[in-house]
Amino acid sequence: MTRARAHNIGLSLDGFGTGVDQSLEAPFGHAGIRLMSWYFPTRTFQVQTGDRERVEVESAADPDDVFAARAWEGIGAEIMGAGKFGPPGWQDDPDWTGWWGDEPPFHTPVYVMTHAPRASIEKAGGTTFHFRDAPPADVLAEASAAASGLDVRLGGGPTSIREFLAAGLVDHLHVVVVPILLGRGVRLWDGLEGLEESYAVESVTTPSGVTHVTFTRP
Amino acid sequence: MTRARAHNIGLSLDGFGTGVDQSLEAPFGHAGIRLMSWYFPTRTFQVQTGDRERVEVESAADPDDVFAARAWEGIGAEIMGAGKFGPPGWQDDPDWTGWWGDEPPFHTPVYVMTHAPRASIEKAGGTTFHFRDAPPADVLAEASAAASGLDVRLGGGPTSIREFLAAGLVDHLHVVVVPILLGRGVRLWDGLEGLEESYAVESVTTPSGVTHVTFTRP
Repeated sequence: MTRARAHNIGLSLDGFGTGVDQSLEAPFGHAGIRLMSWYFPTRTFQVQTGDRERVEVESAADPDDVFAARAWEGIGAEIMGAGKFGPPGWQDDPDWTGWWGDEPPFHTPVYVMTHAPRASIEKAGGTTFHFRDAPPADVLAEASAAASGLDVRLGGGPTSIREFLAAGLVDHLHVVVVPILLGRGVRLWDGLEGLEESYAVESVTTPSGVTHVTFTRP
Repeated sequence: MTRARAHNIGLSLDGFGTGVDQSLEAPFGHAGIRLMSWYFPTRTFQVQTGDRERVEVESAADPDDVFAARAWEGIGAEIMGAGKFGPPGWQDDPDWTGWWGDEPPFHTPVYVMTHAPRASIEKAGGTTFHFRDAPPADVLAEASAAASGLDVRLGGGPTSIREFLAAGLVDHLHVVVVPILLGRGVRLWDGLEGLEESYAVESVTTPSGVTHVTFTRP
């Protein structure tokens, strides 16, 4: 059965999944790369970016890599929110095709949720972006069908993940609590009182100082 | 030098240090005892409550006890917010003397911050409650003097701790992140962007599933 899984969702200790003032130069706003800095030393990220040959994997990142790698296993499609596809206003730029260049790391169909859909964009390496203005359940149904028996990754950002959680559509959620206080931004957890009652919850702190928390539907 | 230390501050994963609807019957509001349930199996709590003879300490609680015990070491005075001394409205009840019976577990002077001060209350075992309507720095100065070279514990609740953090008065903060979503209540972290920059921060998840996070001023 196809599951909906969200992985590697960085959160500040005060619960923000991204900052304020996102732009082309600052995809995460004032948060910068701090919510993802644990990810960059992982083998998973370095293989993706082609840095594996020249960057040593730090040993402290090995436990983090256990989590980082899972995000890419058994995934047949991704769903992302509009804020992950581009900076505010990308819908007004007909030439914008996403942050990831000619060969994005997804290698599957990717469904971008936006109120301003456009024609699909096919990239090298098997990634095709589709744009949908539809409720989460409908987009998930379409992505699940496209996933050919594999799972669907909910790629974020936090607003999108929260919508899927609120609709009861998430089978597995992996957040990474980074011990910083952003003070401002988009909260992941708002309106989700009692969420843990529907999940098995596990936590582990790794040597890099972040805490991985997983919610898994029994 | 006397330090100001806050320990065993339970927080939900969504950042709430207490719930809503506090009352005589529900000191933590709708949160119930969930933010402190990790504490009850610890040796520290059981010794305090006199249950040590009849309740087995669970082995999974031993790592938690390392943290639980520190709260009581080297403390010469406590400061607490009004909400820790009694339920909403206790200021209107001249007979209210706190939640802790005839022999409270503090065994030091305790300074209760309230806009409705009353005469000091002396209890058995060395606990005396003093009531102060003064800024955090002033109350801390008085408590520090009373601590006779030991440290001052900031006993909570979250509103009180946040005020001391915002004023830059906290030398050590220990929070315990419990993997539940309260959805509503009092947030500890509001208005504290960048707090971590002034502290060494450490995190560890224990077998009970909570994550202890400490902020220590270098």
